[in-house]
Amino acid sequence: MGETKELKKKLTPARDCTTCEATAQMIDKARRDGVELVFDRAASMKPCPIGADSACCKHCSMGPCRLNAKDPYGKVGVCGATIDTIQARNFARMVASGAAAHTDHGMSILHLFGEVVKGHNKDYQIKDIQKLLQVAETLEIETDGREYNDIGLDIYEELMKTYTLVEGEFPFAKAVPEKTLETWRKQGIVPRGAMREIMEIMHRTHMGVDQDYENIVNQCSRTALSDGWGGSMVATEISDIMFGTPRPVMAEVNMGVLKEDHVNIIVHGHEPNLFESIMVSTSDATMVEAAKAAGAKGINLVGMCCSGAEMMSRHGVPHAGNFMSTEAVLVTGAVDAMAVDVQCIKQGLGKVADCYGTELFTTNPRCHIEGVKHIEFDEDNPMACTDEVVIKAISRFKSRKGDIQIPKNKNIGIHGFSKEYIGYMLGGTFRESYVPLNENIINGRIRGVAGVVGCTQPRTKQDYMHVELVKELIKNDVLVLQTGCSQIALAKAGLLIPEAAHLAGDGLAEVCETVGMPPILGLGSCVDNSRILTAASEMVRTGGLGHSIADLPAAGAAPEWMSEKAISIGHYFVASGVYTVFGTTFPITEGTKFHKHLFEELEEMGMGKWGFSNDPIEMAHMMIAHIDKKRKQLGIDKARERVLMDMADRQKLDVA
Amino acid sequence: MGETKELKKKLTPARDCTTCEATAQMIDKARRDGVELVFDRAASMKPCPIGADSACCKHCSMGPCRLNAKDPYGKVGVCGATIDTIQARNFARMVASGAAAHTDHGMSILHLFGEVVKGHNKDYQIKDIQKLLQVAETLEIETDGREYNDIGLDIYEELMKTYTLVEGEFPFAKAVPEKTLETWRKQGIVPRGAMREIMEIMHRTHMGVDQDYENIVNQCSRTALSDGWGGSMVATEISDIMFGTPRPVMAEVNMGVLKEDHVNIIVHGHEPNLFESIMVSTSDATMVEAAKAAGAKGINLVGMCCSGAEMMSRHGVPHAGNFMSTEAVLVTGAVDAMAVDVQCIKQGLGKVADCYGTELFTTNPRCHIEGVKHIEFDEDNPMACTDEVVIKAISRFKSRKGDIQIPKNKNIGIHGFSKEYIGYMLGGTFRESYVPLNENIINGRIRGVAGVVGCTQPRTKQDYMHVELVKELIKNDVLVLQTGCSQIALAKAGLLIPEAAHLAGDGLAEVCETVGMPPILGLGSCVDNSRILTAASEMVRTGGLGHSIADLPAAGAAPEWMSEKAISIGHYFVASGVYTVFGTTFPITEGTKFHKHLFEELEEMGMGKWGFSNDPIEMAHMMIAHIDKKRKQLGIDKARERVLMDMADRQKLDVA
Repeated sequence: MGETKELKKKLTPARDCTTCEATAQMIDKARRDGVELVFDRAASMKPCPIGADSACCKHCSMGPCRLNAKDPYGKVGVCGATIDTIQARNFARMVASGAAAHTDHGMSILHLFGEVVKGHNKDYQIKDIQKLLQVAETLEIETDGREYNDIGLDIYEELMKTYTLVEGEFPFAKAVPEKTLETWRKQGIVPRGAMREIMEIMHRTHMGVDQDYENIVNQCSRTALSDGWGGSMVATEISDIMFGTPRPVMAEVNMGVLKEDHVNIIVHGHEPNLFESIMVSTSDATMVEAAKAAGAKGINLVGMCCSGAEMMSRHGVPHAGNFMSTEAVLVTGAVDAMAVDVQCIKQGLGKVADCYGTELFTTNPRCHIEGVKHIEFDEDNPMACTDEVVIKAISRFKSRKGDIQIPKNKNIGIHGFSKEYIGYMLGGTFRESYVPLNENIINGRIRGVAGVVGCTQPRTKQDYMHVELVKELIKNDVLVLQTGCSQIALAKAGLLIPEAAHLAGDGLAEVCETVGMPPILGLGSCVDNSRILTAASEMVRTGGLGHSIADLPAAGAAPEWMSEKAISIGHYFVASGVYTVFGTTFPITEGTKFHKHLFEELEEMGMGKWGFSNDPIEMAHMMIAHIDKKRKQLGIDKARERVLMDMADRQKLDVA
Repeated sequence: MGETKELKKKLTPARDCTTCEATAQMIDKARRDGVELVFDRAASMKPCPIGADSACCKHCSMGPCRLNAKDPYGKVGVCGATIDTIQARNFARMVASGAAAHTDHGMSILHLFGEVVKGHNKDYQIKDIQKLLQVAETLEIETDGREYNDIGLDIYEELMKTYTLVEGEFPFAKAVPEKTLETWRKQGIVPRGAMREIMEIMHRTHMGVDQDYENIVNQCSRTALSDGWGGSMVATEISDIMFGTPRPVMAEVNMGVLKEDHVNIIVHGHEPNLFESIMVSTSDATMVEAAKAAGAKGINLVGMCCSGAEMMSRHGVPHAGNFMSTEAVLVTGAVDAMAVDVQCIKQGLGKVADCYGTELFTTNPRCHIEGVKHIEFDEDNPMACTDEVVIKAISRFKSRKGDIQIPKNKNIGIHGFSKEYIGYMLGGTFRESYVPLNENIINGRIRGVAGVVGCTQPRTKQDYMHVELVKELIKNDVLVLQTGCSQIALAKAGLLIPEAAHLAGDGLAEVCETVGMPPILGLGSCVDNSRILTAASEMVRTGGLGHSIADLPAAGAAPEWMSEKAISIGHYFVASGVYTVFGTTFPITEGTKFHKHLFEELEEMGMGKWGFSNDPIEMAHMMIAHIDKKRKQLGIDKARERVLMDMADRQKLDVA
């Protein structure tokens, strides 16, 4: 009780922690139950102000050195490192870790694919032949008259270079718009293998190596690109081949998807293979019978976080919430088992699961949690793990104790847009094409395109920035593409439906109504940010909007970012040519050369640039101003003044 | 002047900063000149106490979180990470960066070797055929009747796996004593490619991935081993093949090697190729003529830091000092040019070089320094860079301004011991062998072997710990192997000579006098720590001292370590079976499970363990106690009581 009292003292009211009503209810319940959640830990943890400004360095034991963000050039580190060196090094290690997460994910999926096409693994297979052929075509792999597995083997071998290549240009350089690739070549940032780039960052950020922030940022760009166009893109493309390219699907989101009378199993993490296999286990007749025998009406499999977003997009699996809700959902008492794989798994889950009797399991050799049971998931025998999880969940259902309280909140929305589906949706079955999208941008009905993505986190009100930013963007005729926790935030707000067009500006609303699409398109997990890159490339290739991604009237945002992956993602968008605005916090000291380099100079080098704002409306207008600047550079700024143009008008437009 | 006064206030007396008289004189001169050196920056930089205890985490933007080392379990991070998770993650990133440094170094050398054996590069060649054949034999590559370049090509291709291998065991697993390898297999820590291991650390230390300190330490072991037996070992072996395996050579050490009437050029860094090429440039007749025309008596090429140690070991190139003296040496005013490549290059060098008119050049694409001129060293056209450095040095000699003050201190010593030479030295030309070494350990004349290595740094008196520790060890009959800045410390103390045997215990002295060797053997640079591993393996293979490295009466120390490389090195020794004691500081919170794991439990798992002490005499006796423990386990503890044994006595010994 003493602990609970202590807790109460520092608490932020639940509805100031989040705009998600379900999560707020669970925060309140947890407090009644004396259980501490991430929101409370954040409130009692004052962030280190020096670390938050990236003004400290512990890369050697002569320090740790602390500089003064208020007087950034008043002092240097013991080795002589300036604030710019220190910030660049810290930033680089964030990129390295974020890129490593996606690299390892992509390599795992590619490894599995290799086993499948070699015939070593029969538990998974090639599901999407069209995608297989399309990837082969991008990689210039011969397909005529060949067996699919042979084509697959060539894809496997070629794409392995995404990770291992020591010299030369990585495979998906072939997917990059020519002028964008030219910029990269000029800057010397075309990636080799992702592992090489990550290793080199770790070398260059060692004490006494790279001490020129511009040179370090160059290596950050190269590494981040090896994530976006490498690790992440391979993960997405190969997952599509093995599990199917998403097409729009209705799905329910938020804690209301839990069912009190069912065995509830949550999968939380980032890799699709565990989830795909657990789907097989939960639909297995024996398991369903066992659940019924235990008094349940059935087994309810639910996703959370990014693998959840991926499964929702592919199969319509219900989704219980984003990163900030993963502990809160356990407070319902209704979760019988939660299986996690990698990334964004809070260590705090262990304690909360204990308090509510949820069976929590780690499954990946890379992610153990002290005190949490580990059931290793082995792709060569996937059911051994997933069946055990289901069995444990059923046992726990049988012996459920304590109060179950499931918030009623759930929203239905459309998910599962992909670069391929967008072309189909706009162009029709027989003339799949981005021409209608580009035309509507050129004619000004659609002002531009924005990617709004990224985490949620306790240093701001959960979901608030995402929802307000996206509403402001669509109101101003900006078509929004979404992934990850941001997509879930908007889904919970009920906006991933065609009817959200009524919140859009007239031009965008008109396009949405004509096509029957929502103004906000959910693309999947955070690894699926690569879909935004391929969509952007398709826009460039389609023509009329310039010759590089940097020419497009487009911008990106991660208003509630939290992880190093977000920094890698942000930076691969920037290096690809996109103006990318982050919110809540940014690990940088303002007024430094490093800051100027990221926030201004990169754009002058032909790339995008970073931006920051803490206000979602301001953020939207920063992005819109950038889109308008690009429209002007393309000579299509006048178009919006006379939205309805005929072909002659359009031909007159000088679209560089 | 105001700045100088400000500086004076915080100053530590020069002779409290260092035991190196030359460096102390330069500290005094710098202070008179109003120039700030690393010693002064350290004095005015209070290390962050939380960071120093590894009790903070900035791996996501929900923090940076700060725990309390005084009450380590009183609090967790915002994500729920415990002090053990946080420490393990921080430690892992140090290992990753250190291993990356050696990996990148090794890959560069291997790449160059590849170009040489393919005939693409004619500037370098295979110099040491015997070493080529020996490495081929270790790797089980056929040599009979084959061209050397063909054998070299196979070596190149096989060793490339040291870096790129995605699955399976890395090449030099073949060099590891069987029982040691067995332990690694049992723990699942036989490395794959180093880039894979580094990437995986960066993934697993991402927010929400590995949160079990034991599992994280496992990955640290795997990664560190991929450095010691991988990145570093390849660097050493291939450098030996291309530049020759070191054999003992006399060399002068300390700032007195500078010559006022010569053009003085210092090369400082870690990779031998720049240095090998600059040797060609400085001996070029045209250059020497140009120097003479400028009024100099000649060109004086001098090393510093690790590439200096490597060149000293191979060619007897004089050495001006270790890491803590790299700025101080510029204060002499006598250094006309300094060329640096990678690692341990203080950013502060730029300012000091400016003050004294030294031409400072970065040469490696991975290491630029803001404001310092970059002349890229390209192995395909090495003279373009090295000639330019020499020319700039000559110009600077011609226009030397200001006061030149060269400390007179220099010491002569013997350097260049290698695993191969030790066998030759002890066994003679025709029966190169470690038997005499093992026998002398078994009979107790030599109590055991210690590796004393690592950096110098300003948080302790430069060189003091190294010198006192080594003196205490040899006094107690422990044969000492040295590398890097530690070796330079002892060389400056005048102890790398056979006459130092008078400081050794009777048993060790007797062996040294018989063989004519010093009791302290200098093996080269910090990358050459791999020579200690191969020497230890040879001791195991020779027999009589157990079956794994962990069985040997041996220990290691890095009493003044400073860099993340040192942590990687320390950890690969630990994982290889060596008790390894660090001094000055250690980034850990005592009384935690993580501390116990590193300092106790790893030994119980069949590996070595970490130790820490701030007192060199205590450190020596911790190491000696460990050596005695191993002697006892081997059943040779009695031997020291009757140092002179006959063969019958020896045969009676039950040496497990």
